[in-house]
Amino acid sequence: MANVTLKKIAETLGISTATASKALKDYADISNETKRKVRELAQQLNYKPNSFAQSLRNQESKIIGLIAPQIVHHFFANIIKGVIDAAEAKGYLVIILQSGESYETEKKQLQLLLEKNVDGILISLSDRTVNYKHVADIIKEGIPVVLYDKISKLLDCSKVIIDDRKAAYNATKYLIETGCKNIAHIRGPLKPQTTIDRFLGYKKALSDHGLDFKDQLVFETKNLSFEDGYEIADRILATSDPIDGVFAFTDLLATGALIRFNEKGLKIPEDISIIGFSNWFLTKITTPSLSTVNQPGYEMGQKAFQLLLKEIRNKRENKESTKEIVEIPTTIIPRNSTKPRLITEKTNN
Amino acid sequence: MANVTLKKIAETLGISTATASKALKDYADISNETKRKVRELAQQLNYKPNSFAQSLRNQESKIIGLIAPQIVHHFFANIIKGVIDAAEAKGYLVIILQSGESYETEKKQLQLLLEKNVDGILISLSDRTVNYKHVADIIKEGIPVVLYDKISKLLDCSKVIIDDRKAAYNATKYLIETGCKNIAHIRGPLKPQTTIDRFLGYKKALSDHGLDFKDQLVFETKNLSFEDGYEIADRILATSDPIDGVFAFTDLLATGALIRFNEKGLKIPEDISIIGFSNWFLTKITTPSLSTVNQPGYEMGQKAFQLLLKEIRNKRENKESTKEIVEIPTTIIPRNSTKPRLITEKTNN
Repeated sequence: MANVTLKKIAETLGISTATASKALKDYADISNETKRKVRELAQQLNYKPNSFAQSLRNQESKIIGLIAPQIVHHFFANIIKGVIDAAEAKGYLVIILQSGESYETEKKQLQLLLEKNVDGILISLSDRTVNYKHVADIIKEGIPVVLYDKISKLLDCSKVIIDDRKAAYNATKYLIETGCKNIAHIRGPLKPQTTIDRFLGYKKALSDHGLDFKDQLVFETKNLSFEDGYEIADRILATSDPIDGVFAFTDLLATGALIRFNEKGLKIPEDISIIGFSNWFLTKITTPSLSTVNQPGYEMGQKAFQLLLKEIRNKRENKESTKEIVEIPTTIIPRNSTKPRLITEKTNN
Repeated sequence: MANVTLKKIAETLGISTATASKALKDYADISNETKRKVRELAQQLNYKPNSFAQSLRNQESKIIGLIAPQIVHHFFANIIKGVIDAAEAKGYLVIILQSGESYETEKKQLQLLLEKNVDGILISLSDRTVNYKHVADIIKEGIPVVLYDKISKLLDCSKVIIDDRKAAYNATKYLIETGCKNIAHIRGPLKPQTTIDRFLGYKKALSDHGLDFKDQLVFETKNLSFEDGYEIADRILATSDPIDGVFAFTDLLATGALIRFNEKGLKIPEDISIIGFSNWFLTKITTPSLSTVNQPGYEMGQKAFQLLLKEIRNKRENKESTKEIVEIPTTIIPRNSTKPRLITEKTNN
């Protein structure tokens, strides 16, 4: 990459790459004016020559970097496993970093990975990332980058996603088909795309089935934690609407609510139905077991690595890479926290 | 490390390191006899010169490797998080690999990490690893290695462990103190040290409290899975002994058994008490919630990195490292799957 950028600097300024390189290294035979111009442009292009990394840059390190918002997380752990398995099969090792949902950490970690001369980067954006320049700069430099799960539509790179809107639509539709009429939604923070999309899917399913959308039936959470779900269950029970169904943004939120409904003596699903999202392991062991949307993490991880590998190979052969957006299909997993469907048969899983 | 080994080869054969190096590179001015001797010794010492890695070997890569038996696993995910956080704070990145409980994979992965010139390796042995030469060879070469959780007493290196025997003793003692008299143990496979130690702790607690040890109350599992626990619950109910307590090797096994006991209409803890091991998140969401032994993974990960860093620094300064065995304390977490203690008050958690 370094060389592509150096070439670009040279072309832009109408000098040779040798002169550009010498200018950056402060050679005496280059004029101060040229040095200044080269340095300024290098800065604009985010070109950071590093003697150690630079000497290696034409060699592949056969190491890729992966940034996840969280690691102690059933879904992301599955993605990581998918990536590691696929990478190892092709002779690549994976450096794992956790941004902890912090934009600043994410930014710093991208630089750390570049300094280690990784061949490519897989990243799922933190929920607090709303400015994407740190990722766009790297893509512009030509480093293979693939976004997975938490993406931004503003970034021009390959992506592996699920159709959150469709999945949320289907989950809400499922509650409606099992007889729910007043469906609450426990949503995530306002900004991340996944939260927006799941909210919109929920809203559309209501209107497509002749149910009113009510603002007061949407509950926002900050941390997407078990505790958040537990606490919101109390708020759901305190509304004047007779809520008979809950679509939660994640299984963890759904589980928190389910436990609290149990404590309050509600019958699930007779009094209130709940559907989660992700199909974490914990959905099988709650009482009753939790209906959910299966989000295949392992498969997403494998696909993300495949896309990255394709870009790494294209780069090696100086070929352009077409950016691909791969959508992994989701399915509804009916369990015992929802009633049987009114029309079609319930399949158990 | 390469150079230390090369020096050793030269010293052993009474030749200069330059000659040894040339012999390995097949220089014409070195006799065939010398080449043969050098190569043989190099092989014995596990010295694998790799031109790319070799040139870098005196530089620190600031990358460490971590091998875990599993990643989609609450306990190991916490350890990994602990390692990554501690490493990043000191400017190190972490390549993560998963052996999948395979000895062959583990062996291969160690070599992959060495080829990447990692500064040190953290490893938790696979349950199927019963020969330790692949790890011993690396330790002998002087590569900093720290074992965590699944260790072997036969390996001479630093280790971060819990006292499995003591923890299991306390878990069993806790069941006895809450009135259980016929306590079954769901154990892991026969060979791994953790399984042996937890079994011995269980056995000793029985005899220290005047209870008979009965072979038929010990149930061995192969996969340590939820399904294994579920299936063993049926076998526990089929025994002629009136089993009133179960100490399971892991929370997952305990959860499988708990769900099955619930299905069979048993009252937990009145008819049968259960205690697990690890304090996974899932212990909070079963009905009833599961009493367990807290095994602090995050802390283990942090400590393991600290020990490794000390060895990396000592190596840099050509100092010997004292091998340390650090034991992280465990505690009993009483929840609702066990009865209140007969003597002391039950603390809720």
